[in-house]
Order: sequence, then C-alpha cells, then structure tokens
Amino acid sequence: MDTPDLYRPLTPQSLGDRLAGVAAVTGRIGGNPADWTVREVGDGNLNLVFIVEGPKGTVIVKQALPYVRLVGDSWPLPLYRAFFENHALVRQAARDPGAVPEVFHFDELQALIVMEFLSPHRILRRKLIDGERVEGLGTVLGNFCARTAFRGSELSMKSADKKKDVGLFSGNVEIPAITEALVFTDPYYAAEMNHHTEGLAPVVATLRENTELKARAQRLLMKFASNTETMVHGDLHSGSIMSTAVDTRIIDPEFVQYGPFGFDIGMLTANFLMAFFSQPAHRNAGELAGYQDWILQVIGETFTAFDAEFGRLWKTERTGMLYPAALFEDQGQTSDDACAGLLADIRRDAMGFCGIEMHRRTLSLAHNADFEDIGDKTLKARLEARNLMMGAELVLKPDSALSTETLLELARQFNVKDIL
Amino acid sequence: MDTPDLYRPLTPQSLGDRLAGVAAVTGRIGGNPADWTVREVGDGNLNLVFIVEGPKGTVIVKQALPYVRLVGDSWPLPLYRAFFENHALVRQAARDPGAVPEVFHFDELQALIVMEFLSPHRILRRKLIDGERVEGLGTVLGNFCARTAFRGSELSMKSADKKKDVGLFSGNVEIPAITEALVFTDPYYAAEMNHHTEGLAPVVATLRENTELKARAQRLLMKFASNTETMVHGDLHSGSIMSTAVDTRIIDPEFVQYGPFGFDIGMLTANFLMAFFSQPAHRNAGELAGYQDWILQVIGETFTAFDAEFGRLWKTERTGMLYPAALFEDQGQTSDDACAGLLADIRRDAMGFCGIEMHRRTLSLAHNADFEDIGDKTLKARLEARNLMMGAELVLKPDSALSTETLLELARQFNVKDIL
Repeated sequence: MDTPDLYRPLTPQSLGDRLAGVAAVTGRIGGNPADWTVREVGDGNLNLVFIVEGPKGTVIVKQALPYVRLVGDSWPLPLYRAFFENHALVRQAARDPGAVPEVFHFDELQALIVMEFLSPHRILRRKLIDGERVEGLGTVLGNFCARTAFRGSELSMKSADKKKDVGLFSGNVEIPAITEALVFTDPYYAAEMNHHTEGLAPVVATLRENTELKARAQRLLMKFASNTETMVHGDLHSGSIMSTAVDTRIIDPEFVQYGPFGFDIGMLTANFLMAFFSQPAHRNAGELAGYQDWILQVIGETFTAFDAEFGRLWKTERTGMLYPAALFEDQGQTSDDACAGLLADIRRDAMGFCGIEMHRRTLSLAHNADFEDIGDKTLKARLEARNLMMGAELVLKPDSALSTETLLELARQFNVKDIL
Repeated sequence: MDTPDLYRPLTPQSLGDRLAGVAAVTGRIGGNPADWTVREVGDGNLNLVFIVEGPKGTVIVKQALPYVRLVGDSWPLPLYRAFFENHALVRQAARDPGAVPEVFHFDELQALIVMEFLSPHRILRRKLIDGERVEGLGTVLGNFCARTAFRGSELSMKSADKKKDVGLFSGNVEIPAITEALVFTDPYYAAEMNHHTEGLAPVVATLRENTELKARAQRLLMKFASNTETMVHGDLHSGSIMSTAVDTRIIDPEFVQYGPFGFDIGMLTANFLMAFFSQPAHRNAGELAGYQDWILQVIGETFTAFDAEFGRLWKTERTGMLYPAALFEDQGQTSDDACAGLLADIRRDAMGFCGIEMHRRTLSLAHNADFEDIGDKTLKARLEARNLMMGAELVLKPDSALSTETLLELARQFNVKDIL
C-alpha cells in the first residue's frame, strides 16, 4: 500500500487553501477561506472530519488517513477507501434518493470528500443512549436496505453493468479484510486486539467452546467474502446513521463492497438489539420499559418496510436476469412465492450476521458506546452477557427468529435472563 | 465486443506459417511446417481445433472463433475466452498436476492455445455411449473437483491473491451469460433456441407449471452468478473429459469463472446420470444392467474421492482465512464437524446444479449425444422423461439425495419409471 507523495492530511489551517479553488465548494460556503470557521470533529476510528462554516453555508470535509486512527500508524489502511466511499455515496443517492448526504466534491489524490452538512442531525447511537425517539426511523432504514439491495443486484441491473461494478470494487481488499477478521473470527479466539468487560469470561468461554457456533460464524464469513449479490453499505450501525426527531440519513459507506442481500439489515438489527439490551443502564425505571418497547418497534418497522419495499420493487423493477417475468408472469403464474422464498433466505442470513455483530461489538476491537458508556462494570457485564447469548442463539438457530415476532420475543426473553 | 484487426482464423494451410516462429511449438513438432500434417477436428460448439503432427511429435492447436460455431456468426462471442482458458489451464495444472493438458504456447491476439495432444484418449461421452469402462475414473474426477475447489478458495489461498484473481476474471461477462441463460432459465420457458424430442411436451409442461421448481432454479442461478467461492471449470461434462482405459484428463475450461464449490461436481454428476438413463438405447440386454451399475459406481467413487480429498486438504492445507486453526485446533478442538457441515452444503448445492443440468441438456440449446444419438424417438423421449423428472426431484428436494446412497437409489428408481 502506497501513500502518494502529494497526499497531505488536512489541518484546520491548511483546509482553506486546499479548497479555495473548488467552485462547487466555495459557492456553498461563501466568502473567502479567511472567513471560514473550521472545526475538526472526527470521533470515529478511521478519518479526519471537519465542519467548515462560512457566510453562505456549511459543509463537511472528510479525509481518509493512511492508517487506522483508533489504533495509530502501526495499522496502515489504504487511502483508496475514499474512492470507494465516493462511489458508494453516488450509487446510494441514485438508488434511494435523499437517504445519504449529497457529495459536492471528491479529490481522489487527497482521499477527500466534501459533502452536505447534516443539521440538526445527531448520531443515532447517541440519541438511543439518550432515550430520544425518531419518527419514521424503521421505515427509512428498511426502505434504504431494500432499495440499495434490490437496485444494486441482478434482480434489477443489467448483468454486464453489475459485473463491471463487481470488478471495480474487487480492487478493495484491505477494507473487507478488517470486517472479515474483526467481525467473523476475532471474537471466537484470543485475538491480540480483543478486549472485553471483566466478569464476562465464563460467557466468552461458553462461546469459544462451541465449535458449531464457530463453524457457523465461518460459514457466514464465507458468505460475506465470496458473495456479490448486491452492493452493501458494509458498516450499517447506529453510528453510521444521523437523525433529527423526524429525519434520518445514512452516512459513512467506506466499508462498501459487494456482499449478501442480508448483510446490512442484519448488522443494523444487531445495533438496535445492543441499544435495547444496554437500556437498563441508561434509563430510569419509569422510562425503561417504554423506551425498550420503542426500540423493538423500530426493529419491527425496519423489517416490515424492508419486506414491503423489496416486494414492491420485485413487482415494478424486476428488470434483471434473475427471476425473469418470462418464467412467471408471462406464463400466467405468480412469482409471489418466489419473492417470499428469497426474502426468507435473506432474513435467515440477516439473523446470522446479526448474531455475529452482537458478539464482535462486545468482544473484538471496536466496541460501541451503548455498552462502553456504562460506568457500573458489573451491570455492564450482565447486560453484555444477555446480548452475547442472544447473539449465539441467532447464529445457531436463525430459523427460530425468522419472523419479526419470534425475533422480538427472543429479545424480550433474553432481556430478563440472569446469565451472570 | 471487438475482434482485433490482426486476428485471423486459422486454416490447415495458414497454421504452419503462424506457428513456424514459435520455438516452444516447433521444438515439439519437429521439422519444418511443410513436413507437418494438419487436420481440423473441432466438433464442439465454439472453436477451431487442429491436430498438428510432425516428425518429432503432435500438438493440439485450439483457436477461439468470434462467434458461436454451433449457431453461426449471428451469435458473436468474445475471443478473450481463450485468455481465460489459458489462465484456467495454468491454475488447474498447479492445483491438480497432470489433470489437464500442458500448455506449450498462448497467443492472446490470435486467441490461440497450443497444447499437449492426448493420445490414445477419446472423449468420455463417446466411450460411455460405446459402453467402455475407464479404470479410476471417479477417483480422478473427484480429486480434480476437490483440489481445484479447495486450492482455488480462501480455505487455501491468501485473500488478497484470491480477490485479485476474482477481479481478473470479472472481466469475463459474455461467457457466464451463456450458462446463465441456457442452463438456468431457458429450459423453463419457450426460449427461442430451445428444442426437445417430440412426445416430451407433457413432461415439459409439468416442469414449467411448477413455480417452486422455477424459483429454486433461479435461486441456484443467483448462487452461480453472485458467488466467488472458488475458480470453477464451468463446463465439466463428459465431453470435457478425455480418457483411455486407464487414464483420464480434463479439457476445455473456457467457461471458467469464480463460482460455487458444488458447481463442477454437480454438472459432472448430471452428465453421468444422463449417460446412465440413456443406456437402454445403447446396450443390449446382456450388458445393460452391468454397465449401468458401473456408471452409478463411478458417481459414487467421484463423491467418495471428493469428500476424502477435500477432507485431506482441510487437514493439511487450510492456510486461508476461512475456518482458521486459531478457532479449532489451536483451542484443542476438532474442526471435523465444520468440514462435514461445509461438505453437506456443497453437496446440497451440487444436487441442485445437477438437476438443472439434466433439464437443460434435453430442453435448451446444447443437447448431448447420449440422448441425441438415439434413433428411436419414442424410446428417446421415454428415457429423457426419466432424466427430466429425476432432475426436478433433485432441484425440489436436494436434501433427499444428500448421501451418495440415496442419490444412486433415486437414479435406480427413475430408471424403471414409466413416465411417458
């Protein structure tokens, strides 16, 4: 992996010079760079992020760093991920208009994207920790997953176009490698960068003793790594979503790749379930049950929207080579069962990916604030144990959670289990 | 698709000039082109094939034509398939030494491969029609499928190498498109180039009425088209195999692509089953039962060898990112069940692909001689009906043929069914 000589990580001081000549950007911000207010706000694991404010407007400037910010320059990471993120944002905007920030400018050499500033949006994970509700959340997310899945696949696209795109994205090796290791493998052995809450050791041991669980996790890894069903966001957790009380947008697709239909919605569900299981540490007794119910309701709405939108696109936009009308409608037959069968397969995969995400976020490198912000470590371990054991159930028996009802019931059961 | 200006289809007359300057070729043949005997022997669907004989030795010269030979220049086909065939032969030779013809010379511009002449080998399909036996046939084929599957996947390869190779092969769009249409879709509707034996209409109607069958066929198409588990031969039927009484070699991988582990062995099994079902037209009563038993025995040996060799490589060459020892052996656990589980998944896929191949070879464009050579059309239809209905059973209920025993028993049952 080479970092080009002319690449320079931005600072608030250098940013003005870098963007001064880009009309698409200066036109949005207004005035001269000297009039701009620049704040570095990147709190993620991988990038520099600046908010640039001027007399006319505000934009976000996101620049990739040539290493994993969370770990430091000992873990190099290719800048080309900005290239793929830009491609992802453009495709997602076409497939689900309005769902992702608008891109104003992309500089491949500097691995830099200038895009729409979302305000007053906040990262959804923080809102879930703070007990805030977002109207229409599940519907927006279910629609996004369905539209990007369907419209990025050979259900909709011409095969030649889709396969050309698979070729383009196949140049992206190091980024998928992070997911492959951190998500699917590291949780299940003593990987170097793992860490977990004290007290969880017996649960971790239970998981690692279970060879069937690990075999299923690896089977899911094979599905993730050797599958080009559609272009997936690749990292669709509540930290990749920004919301107001009534509006929801999806950001940060730098882990974009071709992968299974069920990947994004599976990861997303896991992050809602982790929000759900962590709530007893964040809510008082009066609010707890109501807010946990709301989170489950969002999960339900997400799947309802996903299935409905996928089914609508199946009827109206099935123009690719898969399940052609020639085999069904043109012969006077319905393809409803075929669609339902595919949706069941997608749900089965999603439940598996969901379970694994629930494991890696508490055992592997990149934990999430839902649990990490809990000060009482005994309580934290107890809540994480519920999350881990439900995750195992989903990986081992995805069929037992194939309907939304059975999935949510399982969550309610684990929510009152005393595992530790 | 462009045919380069300098490309020239060879003739027996021009071949000498074309190869005279290639030392790797002239050294094998000996003498001067004027001393060579050149015979055009291509009887396949797509290419020119020459046998070139000289004082020192004999070679095969295979040249791609820019259209489908079987149909004519109304169906253009890219010459680049020779590029992929050459890549496939090189990889297969490395993964299963001795299994494929040695390549002496590759000319990308002329889409021309000069390779080892196999003698006294004959196309296996003809030998099966003639009632000849081949020693060790199933073992060679099972080993070939297992070695190319395992060693071409992330069970064995470094992910970066494998993904780079997926990118290389993603340039191949038109060739997979042939399989996608002819194999998975055309059999199930009145596609333009379809043809089938008179009298089969009721069976064809039964298949096309079955929406579950068609949905499963399309699900298998999605698996074939959106799956990069390993590099598959892509067209492993008995016309792509050459044997003597004791030696077996695999040829013609121009349909090479990345695809599911179970694809090659599934297609291969279908072709043995079609040889099996067609035998009543080719054998006299005294030989029939014995020869049909031998074919089933070969199928059994193929799967036995596949499972055993896959299992051996699992224990000795599992150096890729999938199912790493860190999760099993290094924790003092066995991964035997994980391997068995993966083999069962591969077998399930294989049975589906097998059933579909049984359909397309009697309903779609490219039929095979096992049935086509039958003069008595009433008998032909009766035997094809058995083949078609067993194919449907495999697509609809792959789990009922997951063991070799149940698969072979199913074949015996359909072999005595009066469907027409």
